[in-house]
Amino acid sequence: MKKFMNQPDTMLTESLQGFAAAHADLVSLHLEPNYLVRAKKAQNKVAVISGGGSGHSGLLGYGMLDAVCPGYVFTSPSPDQMLAAAEAVECGKGVLFIVKNYAGDVMNFEMAAEMLSCESATVLTSDDVAVENSTYTTGRRGVAGTVIVEKVVGSLAETGADLAACKALGDRVNRRTASMGVALTSCTVPAAGKPTFDLGEQELEMGVGIHGEPGRRREAMRPADEIVADLVKAILHELAPAPGNDFAATPLMELYLLYNSAARLLQSHGLIISRSLVGNYTTALDMAGASITMCLLDDEIKQHWDSPVHTAALRWGM
Amino acid sequence: MKKFMNQPDTMLTESLQGFAAAHADLVSLHLEPNYLVRAKKAQNKVAVISGGGSGHSGLLGYGMLDAVCPGYVFTSPSPDQMLAAAEAVECGKGVLFIVKNYAGDVMNFEMAAEMLSCESATVLTSDDVAVENSTYTTGRRGVAGTVIVEKVVGSLAETGADLAACKALGDRVNRRTASMGVALTSCTVPAAGKPTFDLGEQELEMGVGIHGEPGRRREAMRPADEIVADLVKAILHELAPAPGNDFAATPLMELYLLYNSAARLLQSHGLIISRSLVGNYTTALDMAGASITMCLLDDEIKQHWDSPVHTAALRWGM
Repeated sequence: MKKFMNQPDTMLTESLQGFAAAHADLVSLHLEPNYLVRAKKAQNKVAVISGGGSGHSGLLGYGMLDAVCPGYVFTSPSPDQMLAAAEAVECGKGVLFIVKNYAGDVMNFEMAAEMLSCESATVLTSDDVAVENSTYTTGRRGVAGTVIVEKVVGSLAETGADLAACKALGDRVNRRTASMGVALTSCTVPAAGKPTFDLGEQELEMGVGIHGEPGRRREAMRPADEIVADLVKAILHELAPAPGNDFAATPLMELYLLYNSAARLLQSHGLIISRSLVGNYTTALDMAGASITMCLLDDEIKQHWDSPVHTAALRWGM
Repeated sequence: MKKFMNQPDTMLTESLQGFAAAHADLVSLHLEPNYLVRAKKAQNKVAVISGGGSGHSGLLGYGMLDAVCPGYVFTSPSPDQMLAAAEAVECGKGVLFIVKNYAGDVMNFEMAAEMLSCESATVLTSDDVAVENSTYTTGRRGVAGTVIVEKVVGSLAETGADLAACKALGDRVNRRTASMGVALTSCTVPAAGKPTFDLGEQELEMGVGIHGEPGRRREAMRPADEIVADLVKAILHELAPAPGNDFAATPLMELYLLYNSAARLLQSHGLIISRSLVGNYTTALDMAGASITMCLLDDEIKQHWDSPVHTAALRWGM
């Protein structure tokens, strides 16, 4: 697998440097330990921190995250990264960690929370309905629904709400959110240089994880409507409708086709999609695939979804 | 090549329907002939229309385009599509077509302009410095620089400027803009079902076109810094610096790494990048690759780049 890079071991740093340079108005990068903070530190609010996956960096800024601590590719950030990031952004109202449920991330964030001198809490996201336990996880994995949790909690934190209220809303959004993904190809970790798994030219992996973890089953390639029907069915089994989401290497043309398929299907169930987001928001390197995430909205969640946000990946209302 | 679709011949329509459903607040879709217009028709301005490639749909909305007429995959839209789109959005100040320089697009837009009862003009974009003539083109191809032309001209049109002024600014931005791309893999046209060209596991196509047209040469895979150096050299040979751009199937991690490489290089030439845009803005289906676009800014171009825009793909200031 060809990748645009110089050497595998400098790839993350170079990419973070490019991100920080391209969005210098929004973010500031600290190296060793690696973390990113908003260019302008917020005051008098709960500091909201995410980590694990450099993709969270795109959600750093007003209305969402205060700091991000990206681990190396598919590797948990270390406790000292998290601690340094938390200390850099904490401003008197405590720290809320938003952590996807993977064993390494959970353990390291727990260690960071223990070392931290201020008050902290953690929202653990676990929206992936594909499998109950997985390669790196006990219990359900946290996947694309994390973006919704980060947006909604980020909005509440911006109003000056306290730590307990932010954690409570985050937990509630997580409970009301479910996702499931499908892969058409594997991803390739740069340092490994070869695909994480093999998938035949006419196969797909239903319920794949965002690090290439096995899903529910391998099956033959099928029309988009059938794939969407299976994803939606698994999600509806858990809850009901909202936002759309996907992995990296899938052209927007296909993502909008999938959205169209899901929207028609939900409509036939009498369900209303009142907000949506289609694009490359939760990706797994070069893996071709897609996922669907739905969140049961209520007035409070909707209000915080609609509130102004200014990050590299999401921007509206300002 | 696996794609999320139902059947090749309904793929474009389903994708456009999904796009229109996901962005119902912004756009409205008309089928047979296919075109998209803003959900709320603008008044008392030059109508700015683009076409060829459904990707332009993401640039439809306040501050950019009034209508888009997407042809089928890698096929020019027909004159009747363009005419219908123009008639739907024309509002007394004439129509400006922004057309990438490909023979079919140019011919069909010329025919539409002749049939149109109101005043019209065309800005032909030709920013690709890779090759002088290509598979579908006499003269240089129009590629990612078209996004800059559309943003800047769209902003000027919003001020109520007349057709001649919009065309003049569009032509000027095009003259001051240069791009060049590189492919790591081919794209696969859905109806063809197999890759447009073959590229070895250790090869790249330098100067590739956005429909998979041959570039300057095939060469062995190299470190990102060397690839960027060649792209930047070809562009600088033509002009000097600004925005970054890319194709579809390349993870953001790699795109930011490329941006970092280009930024360092330009800095070493004493050049200043005052605006940038990194992401999936000009793509070729599932082709893995990237391109760099630079535009020589001046105060007027900068002002119109910064002005408010509200489209699916670009949104700021509102």
